[in-house]
Amino acid sequence: MSGPVVADLTEGQLLARVFPELPTGTATDLGPGDDAAVVKASDGRVVVSTDVLVEGRHFRRDWCTGQDVGWRAAVQNMADVAAMGARPTALVVGLVAPDDLPVDWVVDLARGMSLACAPHGVGVVGGDLSGGEQVVVAVTVMGDLEGRPPVLRSGARPGDVVAHAGVRGRSAAGLEVLGQGLDRHAWRRVVSAYLRPSCPLGAGVRAATAGATAMMDVSDGLLTDARRMAVASGVVIDLKAPEKVFTEDVQVLAAVASATGGRVGDWLLTGGEDHGLLACFPPGRVAPGFTVVGEVREGMPLVLVEGEVRPGSGGWDHFGAGSQERR
Amino acid sequence: MSGPVVADLTEGQLLARVFPELPTGTATDLGPGDDAAVVKASDGRVVVSTDVLVEGRHFRRDWCTGQDVGWRAAVQNMADVAAMGARPTALVVGLVAPDDLPVDWVVDLARGMSLACAPHGVGVVGGDLSGGEQVVVAVTVMGDLEGRPPVLRSGARPGDVVAHAGVRGRSAAGLEVLGQGLDRHAWRRVVSAYLRPSCPLGAGVRAATAGATAMMDVSDGLLTDARRMAVASGVVIDLKAPEKVFTEDVQVLAAVASATGGRVGDWLLTGGEDHGLLACFPPGRVAPGFTVVGEVREGMPLVLVEGEVRPGSGGWDHFGAGSQERR
Repeated sequence: MSGPVVADLTEGQLLARVFPELPTGTATDLGPGDDAAVVKASDGRVVVSTDVLVEGRHFRRDWCTGQDVGWRAAVQNMADVAAMGARPTALVVGLVAPDDLPVDWVVDLARGMSLACAPHGVGVVGGDLSGGEQVVVAVTVMGDLEGRPPVLRSGARPGDVVAHAGVRGRSAAGLEVLGQGLDRHAWRRVVSAYLRPSCPLGAGVRAATAGATAMMDVSDGLLTDARRMAVASGVVIDLKAPEKVFTEDVQVLAAVASATGGRVGDWLLTGGEDHGLLACFPPGRVAPGFTVVGEVREGMPLVLVEGEVRPGSGGWDHFGAGSQERR
Repeated sequence: MSGPVVADLTEGQLLARVFPELPTGTATDLGPGDDAAVVKASDGRVVVSTDVLVEGRHFRRDWCTGQDVGWRAAVQNMADVAAMGARPTALVVGLVAPDDLPVDWVVDLARGMSLACAPHGVGVVGGDLSGGEQVVVAVTVMGDLEGRPPVLRSGARPGDVVAHAGVRGRSAAGLEVLGQGLDRHAWRRVVSAYLRPSCPLGAGVRAATAGATAMMDVSDGLLTDARRMAVASGVVIDLKAPEKVFTEDVQVLAAVASATGGRVGDWLLTGGEDHGLLACFPPGRVAPGFTVVGEVREGMPLVLVEGEVRPGSGGWDHFGAGSQERR
């Protein structure tokens, strides 16, 4: 990489490179360049969530391009909005950049965000830049409930059906491929699921419209996030055997498991960062695009798989030893 | 410091310590704990801005407590909303924390944000935590225009009066005191202006109501930010001699200048991070709380002081050698 690094440019020069890459968004009243941006919130409320991506924890620059990181930062934030049953409208981005970070990497970051956002009419309306020791990408997303009540984690009721939209286990399998240094092109289907996860954003709105009682983004693994939903709702969530319901994922994952020594069932139950949506519906009201993966029952809040407790559910803790990215 | 550090706690345990410290806010429909928060935006638009504070660049932990950093992060974000003529409503926070960061520091950060936000009815409605090498505090603020048009940097017109609300130069003087290792209690008036700047938030709304044509937060120094306004508006901004208009600040700064060898005029013109508001008004319509500091004229966009160009205006660049904090 022989181009300029961020220390070669003033903040103004760097912003001049980045601004043209950013998508405007259909809800943008005033984009970057002033003290603040202005975004339409026609519902009279705004949904907001924030996520931080740290180099060495959430991504490695030898595995991920700037575009990958920008894409991922955008998608995982938009997934949080979709999980409320809202439509994402705009992002703002804080970037910490070491002096030796190539300017092209920063421009690529903006492009990756744009690739993820533009198809959904989501704008990148503001940002801040600072020097620092380590790349940090801090994204905040806003969204529009369009008159619907937000769908919380806490609304699951006994008798509800548990359903899932999106892929499962592929990001974890892709991370395993990269970690073992295998041919990323041969396994590009899971590698790209790790590098550029795709959340079924429209499914969030459809679930809310269909009357979902609870919903959340599955970012830390199915068992961990289903347990959070069970605890928030005060219910038992009993999942079906994942190999039986995530049949398309099983087809993709089986060959990766053979090559890596990984286990399909583990990826399906505990793999993080796929950004599928987990939702509960009254029976017979499951929204299009969702697959039934379990049921809600009365009882002490916990998660079962085919009626049984799975010990050592694993999952993600950002400071604990279980963090995938620290492996 | 003998208490636990963040590596001793799970993310859930750390959040359980932090959540009770966070202010709810009058516009909060749904606070932290779900995939996203919900904030009232009764105007049908939301003002949004984001800022990143990096340890070693924007603060030093041997100079600033967690409360100081939390306060500063909140105030500088709220100042950006005020500078649009809006009322801040809510913040979200991303925190990157090294393993050895004391848990008490994180709790203090939340308390400092609360101290700055609660009096204004501003809620801290969400956040994200990650490990990392260096403390990074990424704050995003939202605000309500309450039916008013946003006041941009670009609206200054020849004939307008230039006015300022808030203090000037005190933060830079406080930084100098700390940098020279002088007695911070003896010079606490400027040291606290650095550690806990105060933006006249209400003045932003008053300026918008009074018909301000342009407004911005003075975060990078009066000359630098006035030049930005001049360029955005395509006008000349001619400032009065700062010693003549910032008379209260001069009284405070003169003694500090004697003790440190600093120059009052430099602090007034180029000192950053006071978070005063610079606004332009049609003659005779200056809002209460603002002091007239200059006038707007036709011409090639630039800033003058008493009709003359000041060479080497200095000011802040986050990557350039002029950064105050790198001294």
